[in-house]
Amino acid sequence: MARTDISTLGEFGLIRHLTQDIRPKDNTTKYGIGDDAAVLDFKGYQTLVTSDILLEGIHFNLEYVPLKHLGYKAAVVNFSDIYAMNGRPTQLIVSLGVSKRFCVEDLEELYAGIRLACELYGVDIVGGDTTSSMTGLTIAVTCIGEAKKEDIVYRNGAKVNDLICCTGNLGAAYMGLQLLERERAVFHSSNAASTGSNHNSPPNVGGVPAGGGGINPSYDPQRAFEGREYILERQLKPEARKDVIAALKKAGIRPTSMMDISDGLSSELLHICTQSGVGCAVYADKLPIDYQSAAMAEELNMDIVTCALNGGEDYELLFTIDQKDYERIIPVEDVNIIGYIQKPEFGCNLIGRNGEEIALKAQGFNAFE
Amino acid sequence: MARTDISTLGEFGLIRHLTQDIRPKDNTTKYGIGDDAAVLDFKGYQTLVTSDILLEGIHFNLEYVPLKHLGYKAAVVNFSDIYAMNGRPTQLIVSLGVSKRFCVEDLEELYAGIRLACELYGVDIVGGDTTSSMTGLTIAVTCIGEAKKEDIVYRNGAKVNDLICCTGNLGAAYMGLQLLERERAVFHSSNAASTGSNHNSPPNVGGVPAGGGGINPSYDPQRAFEGREYILERQLKPEARKDVIAALKKAGIRPTSMMDISDGLSSELLHICTQSGVGCAVYADKLPIDYQSAAMAEELNMDIVTCALNGGEDYELLFTIDQKDYERIIPVEDVNIIGYIQKPEFGCNLIGRNGEEIALKAQGFNAFE
Repeated sequence: MARTDISTLGEFGLIRHLTQDIRPKDNTTKYGIGDDAAVLDFKGYQTLVTSDILLEGIHFNLEYVPLKHLGYKAAVVNFSDIYAMNGRPTQLIVSLGVSKRFCVEDLEELYAGIRLACELYGVDIVGGDTTSSMTGLTIAVTCIGEAKKEDIVYRNGAKVNDLICCTGNLGAAYMGLQLLERERAVFHSSNAASTGSNHNSPPNVGGVPAGGGGINPSYDPQRAFEGREYILERQLKPEARKDVIAALKKAGIRPTSMMDISDGLSSELLHICTQSGVGCAVYADKLPIDYQSAAMAEELNMDIVTCALNGGEDYELLFTIDQKDYERIIPVEDVNIIGYIQKPEFGCNLIGRNGEEIALKAQGFNAFE
Repeated sequence: MARTDISTLGEFGLIRHLTQDIRPKDNTTKYGIGDDAAVLDFKGYQTLVTSDILLEGIHFNLEYVPLKHLGYKAAVVNFSDIYAMNGRPTQLIVSLGVSKRFCVEDLEELYAGIRLACELYGVDIVGGDTTSSMTGLTIAVTCIGEAKKEDIVYRNGAKVNDLICCTGNLGAAYMGLQLLERERAVFHSSNAASTGSNHNSPPNVGGVPAGGGGINPSYDPQRAFEGREYILERQLKPEARKDVIAALKKAGIRPTSMMDISDGLSSELLHICTQSGVGCAVYADKLPIDYQSAAMAEELNMDIVTCALNGGEDYELLFTIDQKDYERIIPVEDVNIIGYIQKPEFGCNLIGRNGEEIALKAQGFNAFE
């Protein structure tokens, strides 16, 4: 495969190369790439804005994350934030910092993933900035969306007796990450005996594909990943719950509070409770868990409930609804009722299988530890 | 001065600490920091969006750029892009990637600069993302603005016979950078004899204040910078030309094309000409140059016209106006007419003092070289 040095194109050439056939499609986009700023028109709608920064070695490891998947994920996690406001993502702004390790074709791959996500979700790429970096890859993405004022759902609207719902299942992305980290360690291990053991050493972040130390000659990736495609996909190519937002609308349900689960259920529930001034009770046996996640946890001697509570990057929606909407939520696909909102003095608790109450903690993902 | 480790606050704690007393003021900001996305309302206006990513070692050198200035500049350069559309900046989203080298107080400084700029320009900080980084400091800023549809000025509207105008003066920020780079080299030099010479070695990027090798004991920064405050300020604390946008409006002038000068006049003029399908002629002796810039160029044996054409980071406005607006532009303060738009077949040329024509080239700032 060709590896064209980025300096042959220069900054303007690179931007042109990556964006030349990007055409705005959404009717709120009046002018996209090519001027000092993009121009958007949201007549009668309110504008939503969210931003994420992804840094190599902190948020992703290119040893096992393909660049196309990375681009896809970088876009989708921002769409997820807009859906979590009950809005519709409309525009994306992509800024890249790129070290000399990367060539034009690498960035094409990254952009291909971003563009695929934008096409599937109906979002226009309208600008950004591309520059060199002294170190690694930096991806900063800003997503713009729209919603009618009366449709927007904040984190602060949960009321006592509301039902707590979450979509899909939890902990799958985290278990996928554990699997990838373990296999990375095994792949680099020169000691075949370590195959199948839990990895104990911290990941050697910042590497590039096929880089690193000794490679285990008997390593068989096919065998390692078979039957675990679902948790891998949840980690490498997550989706935003556009479908559920549409289904809730169709069902005539407006959540009283909502956010997406990026740092883990516990952490997000505490955000909603703090901002709404309420407490909550969540049932451990109501937490939705996929069998692949459960099997992986078992194999790694991890507690799947803890993983479901604290594993990040699920990008499922967490929301609360009024009790009066109970009948309406039942037929909505892929939504689970996992608990209820209570008075703040009762705290934020997990109710175990034997009725025991355990205070929820925001372990989540702390990039500063 | 205290140096609080960022890990003592964690990600959420750090964001809270830096943003807790930020309150939206602009009436287009319906909801700022604290949810999945910010909520903005631009009734009857179009929305403008621009984004910039600043990386340590590429865009700034913390050896001589104070963090507060860096924050100020990171905000202002984005405001400048919105003014260059003839719009009004309204919201800012700030994402940071921060290595272990930085403490909480460092980020307070950076934020103080961002907030000062936002206060002076009337812009709300409405969100962002803060995370750790394996390396150095990364600042990604997105600015939102608004304008009436009929007021927005694009790069592609220049017409043959339009007058080319630029604000303020050119090359000052670049000369300030040259001075800082020279003094940095002198400061680190153990050989006092090199004082006053042009620096020949590439800057040792990525350093921190007071780091680095040998320090020249006889170095006197007071003496080095005296009488050069203006060019230093242009480099370290640039301003966006909000004043000129207001003055043009008051004078009843709507430019036919406009952009801000971040990569250098030549580069920007070529953007306008390419996008408008026209050529241009610019007079060397009409280029506005401050005497401090000229003196610095003289001292460094550099050609000041080349510096004015290709030096970046001036953040002045470059625009074209219809000839009919000639009488109206004369009384507008700090605007210079530097040339005219011509048919594309005549090319994009600089006209020298002796009438010679030299084709303009986009040297500009190429971060990939």
